[in-house]
This record gives sequence, C-alpha cells and structure tokens, in this order.
Amino acid sequence: MRTKNPLTVPRIVSVAIAYVDENGMEALTLRALGDELGVHHTAMYRHFRNKDDLIDAMYDHVVAEAASQSSLAGKAPRAQIEEISRSFRRVLHTHPVLVQTIIHSRGSSSSIAVERLVIEALRAMGCAEDRIAVHYQLIETFVFGSAAFDFAGAPAHLEMRRERHLSSGELPMIQVAKSNAHIDKLNEESFELGLRLILDSAATN
Amino acid sequence: MRTKNPLTVPRIVSVAIAYVDENGMEALTLRALGDELGVHHTAMYRHFRNKDDLIDAMYDHVVAEAASQSSLAGKAPRAQIEEISRSFRRVLHTHPVLVQTIIHSRGSSSSIAVERLVIEALRAMGCAEDRIAVHYQLIETFVFGSAAFDFAGAPAHLEMRRERHLSSGELPMIQVAKSNAHIDKLNEESFELGLRLILDSAATN
Repeated sequence: MRTKNPLTVPRIVSVAIAYVDENGMEALTLRALGDELGVHHTAMYRHFRNKDDLIDAMYDHVVAEAASQSSLAGKAPRAQIEEISRSFRRVLHTHPVLVQTIIHSRGSSSSIAVERLVIEALRAMGCAEDRIAVHYQLIETFVFGSAAFDFAGAPAHLEMRRERHLSSGELPMIQVAKSNAHIDKLNEESFELGLRLILDSAATN
Repeated sequence: MRTKNPLTVPRIVSVAIAYVDENGMEALTLRALGDELGVHHTAMYRHFRNKDDLIDAMYDHVVAEAASQSSLAGKAPRAQIEEISRSFRRVLHTHPVLVQTIIHSRGSSSSIAVERLVIEALRAMGCAEDRIAVHYQLIETFVFGSAAFDFAGAPAHLEMRRERHLSSGELPMIQVAKSNAHIDKLNEESFELGLRLILDSAATN
C-alpha cells in the first residue's frame, strides 16, 4: 500500500515552516522533523544534507510565497514595488521566526528574481541610473529591516513596545500605547510612510 | 590581599559583551562567564538571577554607550537626531550579536531617556504634534531595522550580499558587488539617504 502523503521536498519544507512557527528555530532538527512527519529521521537525509540545507529551502519557499502573492500584472512600476514590499512584510509577519533566516541568507533563485524585478521597476519609474543602486538597497533594507524590528520579537512584540512607550511617559507615545492594536496600527503607518518617502525619492532622482 | 579586579556589575557586563562578540549569544552562560572572569560561577548569582537578567544589563550598557558617544551640546534638533541615530548604528556595528537583544527588549532607563530626547527634538524641529508618533516610530524602526539587516549576519554580512548581487547579474548591482568595500559603502549611503528622507518629512509635516 502506498502512503497517502509521500515525503516530497515541498511537503517537508511546509511542515518545517509550521514547526518553527510553533517551536522556534532552535528546536528544529532533522530528527524532530522526521518525528513530526512520522518517518525515520534517516529518510530526511535523502532530501537534505543537514539543517542548513533545509533552512535554505525554507527561505526559498517563503520568498516564493511572497512573490506569488504579488499580483503585478497591469500595475505601474511604482505600484509593483509597493505590492512586492507589502507581500514580503505580510509573509514575514506570518512567519516571524524566518526573519533571521532571510537576513542571514545568501539569496536563492526566488530572491534573485525579485531583486531583478525591483531594479527594473525602479528604472521604469524614472529613477536615474546612478541612483538605482542606493534606492534598491534602501528598499531592501527598509522592507526586511522593519520586518525584523517589528516582528522578530513576536508573539510579545506589541506588548514589549507598549511597555516601553508607557514607561517613557512621553506624549504622544503614551497615547499610542493605549492598546496593542494602537501599536500595531502605528507600525503599519510608519512602514507605509517610509515606503512612500523612498519611492517619492526614487521617482524624482 | 585584595583582588585587583573586584567583581562589579559593570566589569561583568563588559566582559559578557566581549564574550558574545567573540562566541555568539548562544554560548553565553553564567558558568562560562564565571570561567572567563576567573571566579566560581556561583559568585555571578550575587549580581544576576539568570542569563536574561544579565542580557538586560548588557542591553542597557550598549544603549548608554551609544547615548554617551553622542555629543549633542549646542546642536540643532535635527542634528541631534542624526547624531543619536549614527551613534546607535556605530555601536550595533561593533556589537552585531546584540542587535537581536535590542530588538527583543522591553526598554531600559537608558533607552527611555533616548526616546524622550528624540521626541523632544522632533517637536523642536517643527514636526506637527499629530505627526510626531509616526515619525518617531519610523526613525526607531529604520535605525534598528537597518542595523539588523546590515549587521546581524556579521562577520559574513558583506560577502553574503555581494554573492547575491553578483548572482542577480543585474546592473548596477553587479558593479556594487565589485568588492566588500563597495557593498559597505552602499549600505552607509542608503542609511544616510533613508535618514535624510525621514527627517525632511518630519521637518515639513
């Protein structure tokens, strides 16, 4: 009798991402993941040499997820960059444990495709050739950096910031610290403001 | 005979920071640090209840270091924010392992003092009262987020990015990827551009 769920690479990677979402990156081992999948851990080594190899595949998976959630067809270049940036932010919000993986990564076929697309869009929106590199780097830094700052402390990330703003006793931050929802809203507003400022600059340089 | 180096909290914290710079945060235990200081590890518990307690003290130390390196006297409000932002970036560059600690922190007396100072400077530079919170949050997110993105992968952080830009085969990124020094320079340029855009926006809103 064949198993209903063959041990494919996409299935291992999906289960691994769900596993680190729940248990953190430190808990991830090929042995623990084998247990999770109901297979002997040696079966994992047919697909991945080691944990780093698996993490690379997880990284590529979330980048591809972000890219596939972007509907770019028919959009203007600036709107394409906005869409990609928000997709990445959404995916990193869903999988905060993977923010570090992305930051430490050398890239993958999916991330290189996204890099090309953003550079092409900067050029198409009128960014001068000698200003493309600095704007590209700023977008990348801002999208991933702000995700790291906003989500890497999840699930306590809103509460942490709320406590600090409350302790500051400083208006208007103590008004923002009324609730976690207020903090979350401010995070999103400041992300949108930053993205707008960067793209305004790219369009006029 | 008295010991030449009494086991004070500042001394423990300095040695702990040097230890994690060298060995990473995972390697830090009160026992390992006791060995490093040449004392029995139980002596450490007179000063810190546990590792988290010690990490809080390390965090406060680096924030105080960044604050003390800022020479704000006689500076205009905007220049004060620039000075504080660059000091934090410099300190986080020196201690990349601590970037995560800062991101996960609930704040300390030093960080609350810095928060107050930046908010006051935003007000003094003419930022409208109802735009202070979003600009404050954007500055904080940008300074710490870009440090996380640029330095958290140290010491291989420049090489990682260079490999990716080279693989993209995309101009102008392959020109930037000529050397690690080029990557480093672009990181600093994009940090300065981002900071300038945020402060221009704060000044005119």
